[in-house]
Amino acid sequence: MINLITPSLILDENKMRANIARMDTHLGTLGVNLRPHVKTNKSAEISSLMTEKHSGGITVSTLREARFFAASGFRDILYAVGITPGKLPEVAALRSQGTDLKIILDSAEAASLVATWATNTKSSFDILLEINTDDHRAGLEPGGDELLEAGKILLNCDYTDLLGVMTHAGASYDCHTVSAIRDIARQERDLSLLAADRLRAIGADIRCVSIGSTPTAMMAENLDGITEIRAGVYVFSDLFQVGLGIAKTEDIAISVLTTVIGKKKDQNRLITDAGALALSKDNGTARQTFDCGYGLVLDAESGVQIPNLFVKGVNQEHGLISSIDGSPLDFDAFPIGRQLRILPNHACMTAAAYDTYAVFNDGEFSHLWGRCNGW
Amino acid sequence: MINLITPSLILDENKMRANIARMDTHLGTLGVNLRPHVKTNKSAEISSLMTEKHSGGITVSTLREARFFAASGFRDILYAVGITPGKLPEVAALRSQGTDLKIILDSAEAASLVATWATNTKSSFDILLEINTDDHRAGLEPGGDELLEAGKILLNCDYTDLLGVMTHAGASYDCHTVSAIRDIARQERDLSLLAADRLRAIGADIRCVSIGSTPTAMMAENLDGITEIRAGVYVFSDLFQVGLGIAKTEDIAISVLTTVIGKKKDQNRLITDAGALALSKDNGTARQTFDCGYGLVLDAESGVQIPNLFVKGVNQEHGLISSIDGSPLDFDAFPIGRQLRILPNHACMTAAAYDTYAVFNDGEFSHLWGRCNGW
Repeated sequence: MINLITPSLILDENKMRANIARMDTHLGTLGVNLRPHVKTNKSAEISSLMTEKHSGGITVSTLREARFFAASGFRDILYAVGITPGKLPEVAALRSQGTDLKIILDSAEAASLVATWATNTKSSFDILLEINTDDHRAGLEPGGDELLEAGKILLNCDYTDLLGVMTHAGASYDCHTVSAIRDIARQERDLSLLAADRLRAIGADIRCVSIGSTPTAMMAENLDGITEIRAGVYVFSDLFQVGLGIAKTEDIAISVLTTVIGKKKDQNRLITDAGALALSKDNGTARQTFDCGYGLVLDAESGVQIPNLFVKGVNQEHGLISSIDGSPLDFDAFPIGRQLRILPNHACMTAAAYDTYAVFNDGEFSHLWGRCNGW
Repeated sequence: MINLITPSLILDENKMRANIARMDTHLGTLGVNLRPHVKTNKSAEISSLMTEKHSGGITVSTLREARFFAASGFRDILYAVGITPGKLPEVAALRSQGTDLKIILDSAEAASLVATWATNTKSSFDILLEINTDDHRAGLEPGGDELLEAGKILLNCDYTDLLGVMTHAGASYDCHTVSAIRDIARQERDLSLLAADRLRAIGADIRCVSIGSTPTAMMAENLDGITEIRAGVYVFSDLFQVGLGIAKTEDIAISVLTTVIGKKKDQNRLITDAGALALSKDNGTARQTFDCGYGLVLDAESGVQIPNLFVKGVNQEHGLISSIDGSPLDFDAFPIGRQLRILPNHACMTAAAYDTYAVFNDGEFSHLWGRCNGW
């Protein structure tokens, strides 16, 4: 019996450190810096471990993260979500307090808005242009006219420094084979370098070519010309990463501690107290080869997977566990009050429901680490 | 321009009060008490408004809610998730501090565990037996032997008071017509009364027959014999409730304020800063007649719906808005920096990402109300 309320978020520190070391070794071989994306972990302690072997820079997804990590001593921060004028005052405030906070944008329209605001307020900004390399979400076309138009707007403004380009190969999450991920990784690199070269040709001093996603970072074979990689979910991994073929179930470092609260034998179902809020409603593995429902099930104390069980359904505070193959559950093995652990489909979404990690070392509770959720 | 960070959770207080009044009027006509489920709102101020016309009792889904609402002055609280032995010490502590905290269970096994713990510690508990009326999730069969077995265990224990029965007709959420919801509502009532009568026949003093879900509460036509209704999401409503036919889009009282951060014209897509964390990954309307994606779109200031727009996709901090019918967006109408509001599919899940409500009255920001998230 683990003496924590359920649901709680458990972090296996040894597994996490192994995940960090695996990425560090891989990128060390490729000779590239890592600017970890801390949106998955939102923890100063964890992010410190992720940056130990690198330059110390991090990537954030919210200005709350920027404030939190700045207050925790991180100085080099990339805010990797497209900026809007309404957020510039807060960015300027953090920069004036000594944080080297960089921003991104992906249109001539946004470049003009930022240049105008910067000039009017005499506030300087360091900027990366976001590049589209896979039609996944956002970004300027690397071969298009608007890239140069946006670049020129920033070059012509006394208060904006165009540091470089960045992209996120989110299409890697739709891959079904490692070789498909490798193709996306090559494309991510090549198109970023194309955009960087085109900006250099109009006089930009491009010092940063920043790319990344956990799958492409792990599968990249050649990163010549790339100055930094951004990746985040690798620190914990999750069932979606396992489905992509870039991690093993045993690598997953976080799990949700839960308790069996009921059984419906006629429905072949255990009921637990980890539901939609505790696990999130991310069912992303449903589009992979192996549908994990809302998570796979571990014995709570040993952390060993219990075969053939998955979380078939969730309500707000109820999880419904059944067998994957439909065979009858051994209900005697699951008395009411038995604790279980659930491996998450998507670590970023599941962790977001918790203010703290219950950190375990060698199977024993060790300490709590905090998270900075919200905006 | 609304002077709030984006994403923020906006609550239209007038719409909320109208939703409360509609439910109060309906249940007043039926002559039944309401014990609102506060898991949707998790706010002391909002829950006070919901209980104003009723006995003052509330329903909670977590022990954190129980602690929070007890500290906020609520005395009569039903914890409506199956209890486990590990949670009894906290329940006992709250009861010893003066909170009339009731618990539920749905098996002879759980009844024995509670009776044993209660006897060993000389702690008294007030208990409702959870009844299965629609195979949705949990509960004892109303006509089964185990109901009476569990009842007898509690009747034979000096420290457990079997107050009554409760059920939640979650199957109402799978209905496609109002008449189907009415059928579920009748079944919910009839089977709860059957369970109550069978327990009375073995000597139980059943004082409470508690049923509810927002759809069945709104559609119930006869609640004779029922002592209280539990419903929660009606206070805000959401697109799923609209899809069920029991609310109008204009009734939805919460929305997520967001900002346009980019555009991808070749993908016919706006990009905003309200993504999977800000909206949740609940795509429940996909199984209804009208799939709202991850939400419908309002003009931020007027709160009026913008036709033919929906949130087609979400990443952690990015929302992807497109047209419902695939027709080209009018990109000029959406400059970068324009604020929008998103109506949620599922109010409980969306609100859970926020610590506060930004409460608006007559279109103007008025004040903040807090929420108690987590466990």
